[in-house]
Amino acid sequence: MQLRDAIFTRRDTRHFTSAAIPDDVIANALAAAHAAPSVGLSQPWRFVLVKSVEVKQQIKALFDDANQKALRQLQENERAEKYGNLKLEGILEAPLGMFVFCEQPPEDEFILGTITQRDTLTWSVACAIQNFWLSLTEAGFSMGWVSIIDMTRLSEIIDVPANFHPLGYFCIGQPADDYQGIPMLERDQWAEPKAGPWVKWV
Amino acid sequence: MQLRDAIFTRRDTRHFTSAAIPDDVIANALAAAHAAPSVGLSQPWRFVLVKSVEVKQQIKALFDDANQKALRQLQENERAEKYGNLKLEGILEAPLGMFVFCEQPPEDEFILGTITQRDTLTWSVACAIQNFWLSLTEAGFSMGWVSIIDMTRLSEIIDVPANFHPLGYFCIGQPADDYQGIPMLERDQWAEPKAGPWVKWV
Repeated sequence: MQLRDAIFTRRDTRHFTSAAIPDDVIANALAAAHAAPSVGLSQPWRFVLVKSVEVKQQIKALFDDANQKALRQLQENERAEKYGNLKLEGILEAPLGMFVFCEQPPEDEFILGTITQRDTLTWSVACAIQNFWLSLTEAGFSMGWVSIIDMTRLSEIIDVPANFHPLGYFCIGQPADDYQGIPMLERDQWAEPKAGPWVKWV
Repeated sequence: MQLRDAIFTRRDTRHFTSAAIPDDVIANALAAAHAAPSVGLSQPWRFVLVKSVEVKQQIKALFDDANQKALRQLQENERAEKYGNLKLEGILEAPLGMFVFCEQPPEDEFILGTITQRDTLTWSVACAIQNFWLSLTEAGFSMGWVSIIDMTRLSEIIDVPANFHPLGYFCIGQPADDYQGIPMLERDQWAEPKAGPWVKWV
């Protein structure tokens, strides 16, 4: 697939078929992620892939908790009703799930490029996520980024070192809906995207 | 260009020719960035493109300050000597520079997906940066991410709103070196990349 097609057809997917994901699709996506830029060549991305139904159910429970909190923040208005009708995850339907972490090195370890801004490590992991996503898109698969989870409660579900900082949980599978080729939040009239980015020249 | 070629040939570039960058290369890269995923369809990326020689000189001075600080942290050992010999930026040579910011919305504005983790906004911008980079690669251009700058001092150089949080400064141009097809930090034996990512299945 041409780069341009991957970039412009990539969607945040929340509707999945039950089609299995071939092993090489995941292997290719992981290889693409691993080719991302990383500050000081630190490659701090860590992936936990989830097939366990029990783990998915626990994640779904965390999502439901956090989503109720979001709904309460919106209170009882028209916007809250619209929010409540949005499908924001496919945790139980998607054949595969994934946690992505940034492994934070010890504070006293010198990592080139992080002296002025430690968050560059996490930003490297976000770049890896984008490569992973584009690679899935090329293969006819997709994913959805679920951030509506209280990540401080992850230790209730999976056992990872304390210096693994989570960026989110991802639902991975074959899309059951292409949202008419636009973001689902646009199609469902939650948000109106800008036609182009804010740019200034100096 | 095929997605896969863009992903695997993309490099963090610090050596640039003086070749001018056609306008459509930047327009395409900005369009690719704008197609990145963003939490709640917030599209919080903001770009300041830099042609001004004076601004570049000021950025170079900030880099030199921060880099001296990094060198002092390494003290007088073999590693410091190696660090001192690395070319970490091409601020003055690259025909174009770019600041990338995340515009932080007001705390009381509800942005879908950010209730549990506000940093998702910045991570969206990192994904946009990766798209921008891949698009440049496709066109035969590249960039280098300069994070060794005290970003709290940016207001000395350019005038942007206080809620624009910087992710870095980027040197953009035509590569003068392909580093033998591997990351420069690997070629120059600063760091040894892992063959593949850390993955766990549950």
